[in-house]
Amino acid sequence: MSFLSDYGTDDEFVGVVKSVLRQLARHAVVIDITHQLPPHDVRAGALTLQRAAPYLVPGVVLAVVDPGVGTTRRAVAVEVEHDPRWVFVGPDNGVLAPALDALGERGRAVSLGDRRRSVVGPPTGATFDGRDLFAPAAARLCTGADLADLGPLIDTASLVPGPRPSLVHKETGVAAEVLWIDRFGNAQLAARPEDAADLGELVRLILPSGEVVARRVASFADIGPDQVGLVVDSSGMIAVALDRRSAAGELGLAAGDEVVLDRLDAKRG
Amino acid sequence: MSFLSDYGTDDEFVGVVKSVLRQLARHAVVIDITHQLPPHDVRAGALTLQRAAPYLVPGVVLAVVDPGVGTTRRAVAVEVEHDPRWVFVGPDNGVLAPALDALGERGRAVSLGDRRRSVVGPPTGATFDGRDLFAPAAARLCTGADLADLGPLIDTASLVPGPRPSLVHKETGVAAEVLWIDRFGNAQLAARPEDAADLGELVRLILPSGEVVARRVASFADIGPDQVGLVVDSSGMIAVALDRRSAAGELGLAAGDEVVLDRLDAKRG
Amino acid sequence: MSFLSDYGTDDEFVGVVKSVLRQLARHAVVIDITHQLPPHDVRAGALTLQRAAPYLVPGVVLAVVDPGVGTTRRAVAVEVEHDPRWVFVGPDNGVLAPALDALGERGRAVSLGDRRRSVVGPPTGATFDGRDLFAPAAARLCTGADLADLGPLIDTASLVPGPRPSLVHKETGVAAEVLWIDRFGNAQLAARPEDAADLGELVRLILPSGEVVARRVASFADIGPDQVGLVVDSSGMIAVALDRRSAAGELGLAAGDEVVLDRLDAKRG
Repeated sequence: MSFLSDYGTDDEFVGVVKSVLRQLARHAVVIDITHQLPPHDVRAGALTLQRAAPYLVPGVVLAVVDPGVGTTRRAVAVEVEHDPRWVFVGPDNGVLAPALDALGERGRAVSLGDRRRSVVGPPTGATFDGRDLFAPAAARLCTGADLADLGPLIDTASLVPGPRPSLVHKETGVAAEVLWIDRFGNAQLAARPEDAADLGELVRLILPSGEVVARRVASFADIGPDQVGLVVDSSGMIAVALDRRSAAGELGLAAGDEVVLDRLDAKRG
Repeated sequence: MSFLSDYGTDDEFVGVVKSVLRQLARHAVVIDITHQLPPHDVRAGALTLQRAAPYLVPGVVLAVVDPGVGTTRRAVAVEVEHDPRWVFVGPDNGVLAPALDALGERGRAVSLGDRRRSVVGPPTGATFDGRDLFAPAAARLCTGADLADLGPLIDTASLVPGPRPSLVHKETGVAAEVLWIDRFGNAQLAARPEDAADLGELVRLILPSGEVVARRVASFADIGPDQVGLVVDSSGMIAVALDRRSAAGELGLAAGDEVVLDRLDAKRG
Repeated sequence: MSFLSDYGTDDEFVGVVKSVLRQLARHAVVIDITHQLPPHDVRAGALTLQRAAPYLVPGVVLAVVDPGVGTTRRAVAVEVEHDPRWVFVGPDNGVLAPALDALGERGRAVSLGDRRRSVVGPPTGATFDGRDLFAPAAARLCTGADLADLGPLIDTASLVPGPRPSLVHKETGVAAEVLWIDRFGNAQLAARPEDAADLGELVRLILPSGEVVARRVASFADIGPDQVGLVVDSSGMIAVALDRRSAAGELGLAAGDEVVLDRLDAKRG
C-alpha cells in the first residue's frame, strides 16, 4: 500500500501508523509517498497524490491530511471503477479526489462509520484518526475485506471535490496558477504544453515580481546560466526552472501565485 | 523491529544501521519511529518512545540517543517481563526506561559487553555504536538468540531512570511541564484529564509569556478562531492547541516550560 | 538494494521511484541511504556513498544525484569485479566512482542506452531519469537480468572520476579539506590518523576563522567542555568535534574548507 500524510517525520506519528498497520496486516508493504506536506495543507496533499498516482502500486492508498479530525467530516474509502485493487482511504475533504480522477471513474465508496479505536493500543483522544480509524480500515482492505465491510455505501458524487487550479486562456497567452514548488525550486504551472503551443520558443512571463523572458527547453541543463527556462516536467506540466538553481527562490514564486505566459510579440498596454 | 534515533536522515547513519541489520537478520522488518530527535536529546527520545510504545509491534526495539557513546556508559538489552517478545536495546542513559515502564514490569536485562565491531565492514572508531554494537545485538535477538547470549545479566533496578516530568497539584489547579511540541504546534502537558477534572470548561493558563483563558474541547476543530483549546491528545494527555495554527508558536511555548492550569474563579494575588 | 539521492522527502519523488521499483521487481527490498543530499551536490553524494559502501548489503546500489539529467551525460551501471552482486546504477558524473573504488576493482560497465520511459505510468518529460531510466534498470538487475542486457559495454576507465579531496603534507603537519559536516556538527577531514601520527596529543588547528588547540581523544565524551577534540570517526577519518555541541557551528567550518593540523611546537611566522 501507499501512504501519504502531513504528519512529518520529526514525531512518532508515521511510525505509529505503520506499527498499527503491521499488526493488523502482517504482509502489507507500505511505500511512503511523502509525510512532509505542509501541516493541514489539503491542497498540497491532493496535488501531490495526483502527481504520484500514475506511478503507484495498484492497491490501497492511505492519504491523511486531516485538519477536520474529530469533527463530522466523513472518513471514506473509494474504489477506482475499472480496477478495484485501487482503494483510496482518507478524510473526505478533497485530498483524494484529484488522484481518483487521474486514475479513472470512481467505483464504490463507503463511509468509515465504525471507529475502531481500540484495535491496537489504548483508546485515547479523538485527534489521531490516522492511527485509530484510517490505518485499521486500510489494514482490513489489505487482508481481504470487501469495501462494503467497512461501512455504509455512499454516493461517489457526494465526495468533496479537490482543488481546482486556475488556468485561463487569454488572447495572447495563458494565466496559470503555480501548483507546486519542488525541492529544486522548479515552479510547476497548471498548464500543459498544449496550453502554450502557439507561444513560440521565447515566452514573456508575467510574475508577481515582474516580467522575464523565458526559453522553452527540453531539459534543465539546456537553460543557459542567465536564462529562465520553461520545461515539460516529470508530470507533463510546464514548469518555470533555472539550471541548478531555484527558480522559485530567485524569481519569488510560491504555490498559488499566478504566472502569465504571453506571446513575446503581443502588444502591451 | 522498531528503530528510533537522533541520527537524522541527512546523513547515511540510518541507512548504514539498517544495512547492517539486514545483513545480520535477513528477515527482520524495521519500522522507523523517528530519527529526527534533537541531537543528544535523551529526554525527547525517552518521551517519544514512551508515547509510541503501546502501538509498536511487540518485538525488538532499537533506541539510540547516545551522547555518551565511547564512554563507560552501559549498553543494555532489557526484556518486558510479561511478554519477552519485547526487548529494548540501547544505551543505559534513561532513553529506554519510560517505554519499558509503560509496557509492564521489567524482565531480564543484560549488559552488551561484547563489542562486535567487525561484524560488518571494517572496524573504525568508537563513535558509532548504533552500527557497531546495538544493531548487531538487535539482529542477534531477531534471529533467535536468547537475551543471556548477549552479555552478563544485570540488575534491572540499576538501569538509569528516564526523565521525570514535573506535575504539581496546587490548591486551585496544577502546574505541568510541557513534554513535547508536535509538528502541528500542539503543546503536550505532563497532565492527564483526571489531573484537571475539577477545573471546569474554561481554564486559566499561566504561561511563561502571560495568561490566557482556554476552553476544554473534544477536538482541534472545536476550538474557535480566537480561542485557545485544551484537548485530550492521542496519548491521553492534556495538550494546549489552536485550530490549524501552532499553539507553541503563537503562545511562545517550548518543551520543558511550565504551564499552570488554574480555576478561572480562583482568587489571585 | 540500496538507494541514495538528492530528491529530498518533501516531494513524492522517492515514493514514486520506489513504487516503480516495486512494480518491476516485486521482491526487491530497498534500503534508503539518504535522500537529503543538497540538491545537485554530486560531491556530497559521492562522499556519502563512499562512506556507506563498506556497510551496504551487497547488491544493486541506485545513486541519483543528477544535475545533468536530460543531457548527453551517460547513464551507467557498473559492477565490482571481485563480487558482481554489486552493481552501481546512476549518472556517470562522479557520484558512483569513490564508492566503487572503496569496494574493489571495477568489473564490467554498461551505458544505459535504452530509455524505457513508458514502463510504468505515462511518458512525460525528460527530467526524472530516477523514475524513467535508473529505477527500471535497477529493477531488471534485481530480477536477474545480466548487466550486458542493459546496454552496450563501455570502458570502465572512461567513467567520470569522483571528487579528489585535498590532503597536503607539510613540514610540520597536514592541510586537509573538510569532507563533511554531519548532523551533530562534527567536521570530517580528508586525513586519517596515520596522516597525523607524529603531531602529538595536542595539535594546532588553523581554521578559516582562526587558530585553536585541539586534543586527540578516543570519543566525543572525552572532550572537555572548553576543548576542541580530534576523534577518529566512524569512517576512520579524523574529525574536528566538540562534546554534545556542533564543532562546525561554533568554529565556523563548512564542507570544502581547509583545516591545517600543525605541530604545537612548530615555529610560526
